[in-house]
Amino acid sequence: MTVYLVGAGPGDGDLLTLRAARLISEADVVVHDRLVSSTVLEHRRGDARVIDVGKGVGDHERQSAINALLVRLATQYEKVVRLKGGDPFLFGRGGEEVNALREAGITYEVVPGVSSALAAPLAAGVPVTHRGVSRGVVVVSGSARDGGASELRDVAALGLTIVILMGAATRHEIVRQLLAGGLSPSTPCACVERAYSPDQRTTYGPVSELATWSLRAPVVIVVGEVATFARGTHRAEAGALS
Amino acid sequence: MTVYLVGAGPGDGDLLTLRAARLISEADVVVHDRLVSSTVLEHRRGDARVIDVGKGVGDHERQSAINALLVRLATQYEKVVRLKGGDPFLFGRGGEEVNALREAGITYEVVPGVSSALAAPLAAGVPVTHRGVSRGVVVVSGSARDGGASELRDVAALGLTIVILMGAATRHEIVRQLLAGGLSPSTPCACVERAYSPDQRTTYGPVSELATWSLRAPVVIVVGEVATFARGTHRAEAGALS
Repeated sequence: MTVYLVGAGPGDGDLLTLRAARLISEADVVVHDRLVSSTVLEHRRGDARVIDVGKGVGDHERQSAINALLVRLATQYEKVVRLKGGDPFLFGRGGEEVNALREAGITYEVVPGVSSALAAPLAAGVPVTHRGVSRGVVVVSGSARDGGASELRDVAALGLTIVILMGAATRHEIVRQLLAGGLSPSTPCACVERAYSPDQRTTYGPVSELATWSLRAPVVIVVGEVATFARGTHRAEAGALS
Repeated sequence: MTVYLVGAGPGDGDLLTLRAARLISEADVVVHDRLVSSTVLEHRRGDARVIDVGKGVGDHERQSAINALLVRLATQYEKVVRLKGGDPFLFGRGGEEVNALREAGITYEVVPGVSSALAAPLAAGVPVTHRGVSRGVVVVSGSARDGGASELRDVAALGLTIVILMGAATRHEIVRQLLAGGLSPSTPCACVERAYSPDQRTTYGPVSELATWSLRAPVVIVVGEVATFARGTHRAEAGALS
């Protein structure tokens, strides 16, 4: 009768919130996408139903099907937990699921999570803001489905840290927009792959080379002077955090 | 011998990560600022030393004293936990503390937290991104110490959601910069006070009125079309989350 939209954090089960872990352990059914790791799902009850709805973010049709699924499950189960990688309200389409639940008159609650937009840079030792270096951060999606990276041209030269989620496949366009917007080609860039997984890896270099790197999704791209923190430090950070 | 820089989340002890809660429970000494709530500190050992270093973000001199304190404590205790409201690397000055610890040769680890920049809007029902409405988010500080809100002029009219932390005292300047940058005066704005505390409150209206509202810090300001989610919905959300 209640649907909980719960942020599952950046992957590591240890970075779930206490509230998320408790809700998962109480759920009759857990609905999750591929970004949610097995260490997160381990908190579930042994007899809980588990439904994998595929990739993290899909097209409109698939999202409509998920919305309908949540509404249907709410009529069948007492406690439905919908897990979303990272935070439900930052590129998580949580607002769409909330709208569907509201329209159907279903009780819901949204529980924030640790967002990969901040936590993946952190895992590589990169603070997204730093006194004298960066006074703010812009977070955008690189996914072509979300309209690509056109807004990057406008924010390129403001001196803010730029974090790009889901940008592995559109890196050529990302670099093109950033340079067209006046960003220096030598601006530091760090790419954090599979943050908080055992095979976390950080690649560091000038943003002009971003499109040439070999990367495996999911990747969080950080562009800006703060990315220099990743140079030479990420190994120790990754070790300390693993 | 090890200093843990730990994100304490937006206030509610239930929104600590599992890792943060465990580290706090094991710490010999816990260093925290005023943004960290008592429900977070309740996780500490009964015999742990607790040091309150005052306001969340201070001037350079106070930060230097905190850096020196952490280095000194690391030589006296096995496990030092430095708690920071929200996330350590988003306006948390965590990068400065990391630099001080590295220079002193002290082992450290940074643990991400749920940031108020995302979680406070969420507590008011506001998704910072939403399909067809907002394709990204800019997070800046409104604190005069951080240089005020001058970057707001450049990001005002990009159609991205704007989240302003520590902006209660500089609202007049914030509105001036946003309107000078071409933002419509009727753009929706939501201010979330004391998110996740029992006296959480959301104020909603056109951004042009922001400076006239009576607000009590800490406040997270959200500007953009997504703020309409806060209208009429925040009471239910706040109730569900309390």
